[in-house]
Amino acid sequence: MLDLKTSFIVIVVQILCFEYCLSQFIVRPPISPLASNETPIPANYSIKYYSQLIDHFNYINNNQFRQRYVISTDHWCDGCPIFFYAGNEGDILLLARIHGFLWESAKQFRAMVVFLEHRYYGESVPFGKVDKNLTKIGYLSVDQALADFADFIQDIKTTIPGAQNSPVVVFGGSYGGMLSAAFRLKYPGLSVGAIAASAPVLGVEGLAKSCDAYSKLETKDFTEYSPNCSQTVRNSWEALFRIAGTADGRKWLTNEFKLCKELAAGEEIRIFQWLMVAWSHVAMVDYSNEANLFSELPAYPLREMCKHMTNPGADDRGLLSQVYEAANVFYNYKGLSKCNDLNPNGPVDPTAWGFQSCTDIVMPFCTNGKTDMIEPFGYDFKAYSDQCFSQYGVRPDPRKAMMLWEKQSLRRATNLIFSNGLRDPHSSNGVLDSLSDSVIALKISHGCHHEDLRPAGVNDTQELINVRNQEKQYMKQWIEEHYTTLNYFPNEWLN
Amino acid sequence: MLDLKTSFIVIVVQILCFEYCLSQFIVRPPISPLASNETPIPANYSIKYYSQLIDHFNYINNNQFRQRYVISTDHWCDGCPIFFYAGNEGDILLLARIHGFLWESAKQFRAMVVFLEHRYYGESVPFGKVDKNLTKIGYLSVDQALADFADFIQDIKTTIPGAQNSPVVVFGGSYGGMLSAAFRLKYPGLSVGAIAASAPVLGVEGLAKSCDAYSKLETKDFTEYSPNCSQTVRNSWEALFRIAGTADGRKWLTNEFKLCKELAAGEEIRIFQWLMVAWSHVAMVDYSNEANLFSELPAYPLREMCKHMTNPGADDRGLLSQVYEAANVFYNYKGLSKCNDLNPNGPVDPTAWGFQSCTDIVMPFCTNGKTDMIEPFGYDFKAYSDQCFSQYGVRPDPRKAMMLWEKQSLRRATNLIFSNGLRDPHSSNGVLDSLSDSVIALKISHGCHHEDLRPAGVNDTQELINVRNQEKQYMKQWIEEHYTTLNYFPNEWLN
Repeated sequence: MLDLKTSFIVIVVQILCFEYCLSQFIVRPPISPLASNETPIPANYSIKYYSQLIDHFNYINNNQFRQRYVISTDHWCDGCPIFFYAGNEGDILLLARIHGFLWESAKQFRAMVVFLEHRYYGESVPFGKVDKNLTKIGYLSVDQALADFADFIQDIKTTIPGAQNSPVVVFGGSYGGMLSAAFRLKYPGLSVGAIAASAPVLGVEGLAKSCDAYSKLETKDFTEYSPNCSQTVRNSWEALFRIAGTADGRKWLTNEFKLCKELAAGEEIRIFQWLMVAWSHVAMVDYSNEANLFSELPAYPLREMCKHMTNPGADDRGLLSQVYEAANVFYNYKGLSKCNDLNPNGPVDPTAWGFQSCTDIVMPFCTNGKTDMIEPFGYDFKAYSDQCFSQYGVRPDPRKAMMLWEKQSLRRATNLIFSNGLRDPHSSNGVLDSLSDSVIALKISHGCHHEDLRPAGVNDTQELINVRNQEKQYMKQWIEEHYTTLNYFPNEWLN
Repeated sequence: MLDLKTSFIVIVVQILCFEYCLSQFIVRPPISPLASNETPIPANYSIKYYSQLIDHFNYINNNQFRQRYVISTDHWCDGCPIFFYAGNEGDILLLARIHGFLWESAKQFRAMVVFLEHRYYGESVPFGKVDKNLTKIGYLSVDQALADFADFIQDIKTTIPGAQNSPVVVFGGSYGGMLSAAFRLKYPGLSVGAIAASAPVLGVEGLAKSCDAYSKLETKDFTEYSPNCSQTVRNSWEALFRIAGTADGRKWLTNEFKLCKELAAGEEIRIFQWLMVAWSHVAMVDYSNEANLFSELPAYPLREMCKHMTNPGADDRGLLSQVYEAANVFYNYKGLSKCNDLNPNGPVDPTAWGFQSCTDIVMPFCTNGKTDMIEPFGYDFKAYSDQCFSQYGVRPDPRKAMMLWEKQSLRRATNLIFSNGLRDPHSSNGVLDSLSDSVIALKISHGCHHEDLRPAGVNDTQELINVRNQEKQYMKQWIEEHYTTLNYFPNEWLN
């Protein structure tokens, strides 16, 4: 039986890391989206760099870092809208590529499109590389990231001729959605509205009502394809621990799971984690269309995976063969990977997201094995906090996130849409009911993780199309409200 | 003729420093309000200290400072409201003493009363004393002060038994009003509403439409008592420069102005400044009742002062004798001071407010001598910025204040009252029209600087009484909205 306690931090940090932690496991094809010709950024665009303050909140120094952004003015006219994507944890080129809704709406709205990379991700890392020393990573916080957005937006509005009166619409998915919502609250004068897609704002420590909501909804997604599918996963954990307990079993696992390196005793935690990431993420990205995210996925990838998990009554090796085949759909659908490297970054590699998970964005996570299909483990904030302290020298302060995202605050925002696909496990911590006439919840019952911000696809449901249209209606309303307030209407925008 | 250019920073910083700069000139009676038995804090109260983070926005260190506060629970019951005064630039005991409205309303509202001292003022100075070295003073900013308020409010709500569900109403006058408004915007979940009294939020660099609005309204106040009064001031400046230009004249000035030290050549800037502070401040505090602020003042002190300034046609010495007598009403009404020390803190002493005036709170100020009674001098942002840089190593960044207080942001707030006395020169930069159903402007046509937050007095106008009653109506509404949302009504509060 695995001692889950010691690996607690790994599990919590890794599982609720949104898109980010996938990049640790999927290293082929290369992360750079420019290498992919299949869904490039659908516009002429430039990659630029903004000199950003490392610390916005004291006057001790004025050190700066280069913050990368993607900008396109293909459709823009003077005074016309600016679509600003609030970069979340990841490479901004990847984020620009997968959020087709902005690009596709830009023509209709005559909008400039800008994607700003989040500090400490992609190429926008102060001091060159992520270093867990506090004097280096200590400027990574939601407050600083929001101040980055504010400074940057003010800068483009003052330096790009014709942009001064442009209304800014903010977009963000996942953690980026959380940022978008907070940005509406903290800097309401710098944008006219925001779409916060699949933002689990109510899932942070201090606000989360339970820690097992995610795994429960994840399991429901599996069960809806077939009860056998989730039951196979449920039965596989003990099988994994039994087989990994013998040298012969580990040899079999090394072959069956096509591991790049032979599995050593005690390393089954890595397989556990590799599977956990696959299950938790496929539930997020079970899109109705083929998708090229970190790797390429078929339409409805979970459906494809469940085709491999049909016999929960198989013996231990039979169970693990099924889950391997299923995970392989997720990690290696195109068969590009020759072997699986379960430990690409070394043990518990300190990452930017790990630090954020130990400071601003603590998202309680637990399983019980009953209402979900995961090996049970509990959530222990104190133990987690201790792990954070030993790893980074910081402890989470839940009050920060509470101040940003508690409903009492959120309902004071204006022109803010929370959209959620209800099959996305993160929707269990989303805002699913409107908080006011101006803080609107839109739900896509068959949708997944920020599916509304993805490019339109042939299999889009009518419901998804309707929600995108509603969002465009709201955007139009916000923009027109802005022009009316200024009493200024760009001619070209009206035509 | 005085070279005003070189003393530009002094003038701008000193004149628009609200209450703060008075403390430089009025050193007798002692600033400590506890020494005054005439209007002590009208309640049982404690003075306590909160361990506050010096820097809320990075994780480099966890250094703390002791932040002082005044707290009274005389009338409070479990779950009942908390009145929180957002400390501005000054000693919190003084601020607690002069804002009688909180104390007087506390009984009716069963409210706990808390006054938190602003960082870098009074006893709440990180590193012990104000030091212009950036590594010491560099944590003085509006953002940090607002985060202080947020942390402190969260702390008292979690550590005082029965306070968890208490609605917090925020109050602030002058710069404290600016903070209160910003606090409603940035942390809307931590209070139920705020009264921002006499907050010149639209007077900051980048938002101010003119730099002479203050001196124009100040002059109007003088003229309304008597055109001779303002004309005497207007004529006195050249007289001052002429007299100070000779050794004989300076000797005369030393005697006439009861200076503690003989006036040296070139030091007339100090008399100029001393008079400027008196004129600009008496227009703020021309209250209908006697007041004990930094010094004691009669009811309508400006009326008393104008009684000394009746002959604008007098010769140079005659003019200066008149203005001295008038200034003496302001500085030394009770005759406690034996001589006037015009330079108590050394030349251009770097102060906390000086630093704030060079960073977050730049308030353009100029005069023209025509629509106002002051010797003309212009406003030159670049020169001012250069002075700031040479003094502190920082330059103002107007974008910070703009982000906080531009109307596009303010109108997104909720449950926020901007009150203004229209005789207060700062009202020229206040919000005088409601920005929404929830951002309300209240005007007191005959009122002065945050007069609504002062204790009730025998000469209060009916208009002032009405505005205070309106404020209490709004407060009641905010509080009941809070209890309704929680579905929780403290028994004792209802009774």
